[in-house]
Amino acid sequence: MQPFSLHVPHRVYGMAASGNCHKVKLALDILRIPYRWHETDIMKGESRTPEFLRMNPNGRVPLLQIDTNTFLPESNAILCYLAEGSDLWPGDRLMRAQALQWLFFEQYSHEPYIAVARFVHLFLARHDDPRLPDIMKRGYAALGVMEKHLGQHDFFVGKRLTIADIALFAYTHRADDGRFDLAPYPAVRAWIERCLQQPGMSAMPGPAE
Amino acid sequence: MQPFSLHVPHRVYGMAASGNCHKVKLALDILRIPYRWHETDIMKGESRTPEFLRMNPNGRVPLLQIDTNTFLPESNAILCYLAEGSDLWPGDRLMRAQALQWLFFEQYSHEPYIAVARFVHLFLARHDDPRLPDIMKRGYAALGVMEKHLGQHDFFVGKRLTIADIALFAYTHRADDGRFDLAPYPAVRAWIERCLQQPGMSAMPGPAE
Repeated sequence: MQPFSLHVPHRVYGMAASGNCHKVKLALDILRIPYRWHETDIMKGESRTPEFLRMNPNGRVPLLQIDTNTFLPESNAILCYLAEGSDLWPGDRLMRAQALQWLFFEQYSHEPYIAVARFVHLFLARHDDPRLPDIMKRGYAALGVMEKHLGQHDFFVGKRLTIADIALFAYTHRADDGRFDLAPYPAVRAWIERCLQQPGMSAMPGPAE
Repeated sequence: MQPFSLHVPHRVYGMAASGNCHKVKLALDILRIPYRWHETDIMKGESRTPEFLRMNPNGRVPLLQIDTNTFLPESNAILCYLAEGSDLWPGDRLMRAQALQWLFFEQYSHEPYIAVARFVHLFLARHDDPRLPDIMKRGYAALGVMEKHLGQHDFFVGKRLTIADIALFAYTHRADDGRFDLAPYPAVRAWIERCLQQPGMSAMPGPAE
C-alpha cells in the first residue's frame, strides 16, 4: 500500500484547542510534513456523527488520514507513526521504551487530570464540579513526577526533544487553564521554555482564539 | 550498556491478580524469556514505599528491572520493549502504529472502566460505589468498539496475536469480575477463546488464588 502522503498531504481531523490534537500539529510542524487540518468541533458533536464514526468507531479526535480508507486514531500512536525514522523517535531500544513509558504516563496519569481540569473550567465553565478536588490532587501528583525527572534531565528521554516531550508539553504548558499553579515546579517551567525554543513548536490556542 | 538479561533473568515487580501486571507475565511466557517475579502487594502499599519510589517515582506496578539501575514502568511500554524483534510486534510501520493505537485505547478508554470496576468489586467490595454507573457505561462503550473490530478480524492487528491482543486480553477476559456481561459480545468472547489457545497464554488469578 502506498502512503497517502505521496499523493496528497496527510489530513488531520482535529480541534485546534485540544491538546491531544495540538500534539499532532506540533509533530507535523517540527518534521515539516505537509498536512491539511480539518477542524472538528467536539463541542458540536462533530466526532460522533455517523460519518465520523465510520472513520473512527471510538468517536474521538485527533484522527490521521493515512490513505483513502486508512485512518489512525489515538494522539500518541499518531506521534509514534509520524516520528518513526526521525530525530523525534530514539534509535536505541531502551530509549524508545522510555519514550513510550512517558507517552503511556501522559495518557493514564496526566491527561485525565491536567486536560480534564482544563476542559471542565474552559469548555464547560463548571468551576464547582465536585470531581475537581480529586482531579487537582492527581494532576499535581503527575506534575510532581515530571518535576522530579526534569530536575535531572533537560528532556524526558536522552538529550533532545522527542515525542515524549511533545505529548507532555501539549497540556502542561496550558495547565493554568485548568487552574494548576506551576510556580512550585521550576524544572517543569524551564522545560516548557526549552520546548518552546525548538523549531516548529508553538503554544496551543484557546477555544475562543 | 549490556542488557541485564544476559547476566541474570529479568526481574518483574508485579501483583499477580493485576491485569496490568498479568500482561507482562503473558509476554514473557509467550516469548519464553526467563524472569523472576517479585510479588508486590499494592493493597499493602508495597508500591509506595521509599525503596519502591526510588525505582519508580510514579509508585505503580508492573515494573521491569532491565539493568542494575534501570527500571521500566508502564505495562504497555514494557510489552513494546519485550516484543521488539518478535512476532508479537508487527514488522510493518502502519501495523506497528495500529498496535500502539490499541495499546493507547486500552489505557485510556478501556482499563479505567473495565479494570476499575473489577477493582471496586473484587478488591474494595464497594458494590454500591456511586462511580459505578458511569464506569459501567464507559466500559460497555469500550467493549462495543472491540466487538465491532473483532466482528471482522480474528486479532486486533493483522492475522496473528500481537501485544495489542495481550494488552486487551488482560482485563477483558476477567470483565465478569467487574460485573460486565459479555453475553451480547460474541466476537469478544470468541477472541478470548482464540487468545487462550495461543502457547504461553493463561488466565489471570483472582486476589485470593
